[in-house]
Amino acid sequence: MSTGDIHTSPSGFKPKKSVALSGTPAGETAVCTVGQSGNDLHYRGYDIADLAEHCEFSEVAHLLIHSRLPNARELAAYKKRLLGLRTLPAELKQALEQLPAHSHPMDVLRTGVSVLGCLRPEAEDHNPDGARDIGDALLASQPSMLLYWHHFARTGKRIAVDADSEPLAGHFLHLLHGRPASSEWIHAMQVSLILYAEHEFNASTFTARVIAGTGSDLYSCVTGAIGALKGPKHGGANEVALEIQQRYSSPAEADLDIRRRIDDREVIIGFGHPVYTISDPRSNIIKEQARALAVDGEGRRLFAIAEKIEDTMHQTKRMFPNLDWYSAVAYHLMGIPVDLFTPLFVMARTAGWCAHVIEQRESGKIIRPSAVYTGPQNLKFVPIEARE
Amino acid sequence: MSTGDIHTSPSGFKPKKSVALSGTPAGETAVCTVGQSGNDLHYRGYDIADLAEHCEFSEVAHLLIHSRLPNARELAAYKKRLLGLRTLPAELKQALEQLPAHSHPMDVLRTGVSVLGCLRPEAEDHNPDGARDIGDALLASQPSMLLYWHHFARTGKRIAVDADSEPLAGHFLHLLHGRPASSEWIHAMQVSLILYAEHEFNASTFTARVIAGTGSDLYSCVTGAIGALKGPKHGGANEVALEIQQRYSSPAEADLDIRRRIDDREVIIGFGHPVYTISDPRSNIIKEQARALAVDGEGRRLFAIAEKIEDTMHQTKRMFPNLDWYSAVAYHLMGIPVDLFTPLFVMARTAGWCAHVIEQRESGKIIRPSAVYTGPQNLKFVPIEARE
Repeated sequence: MSTGDIHTSPSGFKPKKSVALSGTPAGETAVCTVGQSGNDLHYRGYDIADLAEHCEFSEVAHLLIHSRLPNARELAAYKKRLLGLRTLPAELKQALEQLPAHSHPMDVLRTGVSVLGCLRPEAEDHNPDGARDIGDALLASQPSMLLYWHHFARTGKRIAVDADSEPLAGHFLHLLHGRPASSEWIHAMQVSLILYAEHEFNASTFTARVIAGTGSDLYSCVTGAIGALKGPKHGGANEVALEIQQRYSSPAEADLDIRRRIDDREVIIGFGHPVYTISDPRSNIIKEQARALAVDGEGRRLFAIAEKIEDTMHQTKRMFPNLDWYSAVAYHLMGIPVDLFTPLFVMARTAGWCAHVIEQRESGKIIRPSAVYTGPQNLKFVPIEARE
Repeated sequence: MSTGDIHTSPSGFKPKKSVALSGTPAGETAVCTVGQSGNDLHYRGYDIADLAEHCEFSEVAHLLIHSRLPNARELAAYKKRLLGLRTLPAELKQALEQLPAHSHPMDVLRTGVSVLGCLRPEAEDHNPDGARDIGDALLASQPSMLLYWHHFARTGKRIAVDADSEPLAGHFLHLLHGRPASSEWIHAMQVSLILYAEHEFNASTFTARVIAGTGSDLYSCVTGAIGALKGPKHGGANEVALEIQQRYSSPAEADLDIRRRIDDREVIIGFGHPVYTISDPRSNIIKEQARALAVDGEGRRLFAIAEKIEDTMHQTKRMFPNLDWYSAVAYHLMGIPVDLFTPLFVMARTAGWCAHVIEQRESGKIIRPSAVYTGPQNLKFVPIEARE
């Protein structure tokens, strides 16, 4: 691959062999910068640290989908509008009821969004305002889709998805647990969604942009992006992170075993990043949320194990935890089943996907790389009768 | 974008401004070469002209999904196996029945494949044999999904999707029209499916590879690819081609109007190609099929209009028709509704998509390009109370 115009950063970014197109620009964006100094992240020019400290998720979703931070009046109106968009059409509920309890929740969300694209298709002109409306509707209705199916598939109960009046983070926790969540949990969930909302040309966003480039509709873009996010090298990583943390009964045991695995050249999921070189700027933010949620003995033990592994990885490999590592701790401590971790990532990242789809459409470009051919050349065709 | 290692061909390929990553290799493949000499196409080393002349579609699907041309015994066994895979689970039929008649058939197929991914998920180890089995099942069952919905949504009739014993091309035509198709139609459909089956790193295949790169499942890859193929700059082009051809009542009228549109700098869909520079090697093959199908006055008129526009485009712009141009004529003459043109493309290209997903997995790489940032830098965060 060419290195001629690799996106170099002050911290010395080098293309990674495990990543195709590493450092090769595939287009322009005004939505996000990631790792410009090795450990920073900005959404539309704003530092992620400020957004996570001062904003609620709806505010950041507005920044991404509607291109700017809302004022207090606009935010109130936006939240009211999102509230009205969380109901599900009857046909969508019927379709979700066909999906068995063993389904992967990411497959369920992918299907739910695809069905909604049949029921309420995007306008043919793909005008940006219409796309923003669909983005808002997806943000608001994905928790409903997921948790309607979650409860129906497990217990046969058809839950009301619009019984409460909480913004997205609280709505998800309320639907999941069947009761309002504490303000501490809602706050932690808000922060987590803000951190997961956007990340430049990551694989799922890039998928959405490749689909958008052909002139396809927004539901197709999001459906594809959900499929990409499902992979364990992408969104699925937070599920694996918890599995690792839960393997151990104490920090000392974790330390010993992780050192052994590193000696065996095993890759420890939840550490390192294809773009950041110094650290993941989101990690310390979510770590503090996880620490605050670790209020009982069990929680403190899980947090201590995660922190010990962070130390071990730093000492042995100079590797840093990425966002997934402490997100796994925080989600587990809020009683979220592990297979709903990546769907939460979807609910946040939908904001970023929509922003990128609108931007890709404005560029007018189709994305169509070439390939290096490694197969046989000019084989002589043998008719079927003569084949051995 | 870098031009340092652009894939150059003897015919002088130059990156196109309307195409992002044009000529930039995004990986290796042994599945296909396209336009190496400016107007050639090979599947796994075999010339498309030989495959289209001598093979049936199942044979080419076997070449793509199972890596080699089958002998007579293997092909018979393969076709028998595909026959057994065309039934639909009851839950899938129920889900399809929820999708209204106004749905885009591509959205229906995207949903059908996504539902099947919930009902019959891929094995967690993603072993290649399992992936090939799913590829075969998708090939065999997509006509069933599409036409079950097509008839149910329009007439409420629940058709049997496994009543006949014809291979895919005939099966599709039989389910659509409710009676066996003529051998001429089946032959034309076979040729068309062979030509559409594979095309290197086109946007839908690249979508499938980006999704595969994260470690996601095959259904997610195909769901995303269907979404990409839907776009009018990609698979949707054959639908637009027919609209253009049907605009005119005579070749002379077409000639006059197309010249006017060219003067107005309008893009005529169905002509030119992001990769071929001399001609599309598939165009003359499908043109002869379309000519053979044009047996009555109406058909001969449509063909004559298409051919006149081909002349006009060559004379005025030195542009050549691509596969979509005469495919539109052929499909229309087989009584296929225009909104089922792109779904037919899906049924063929599924073979190529599966081959590429298996190959992307073998590479072990995630696809993650970078972006050129064009937005504001380091904006000062203003708390919501202070925003205007």
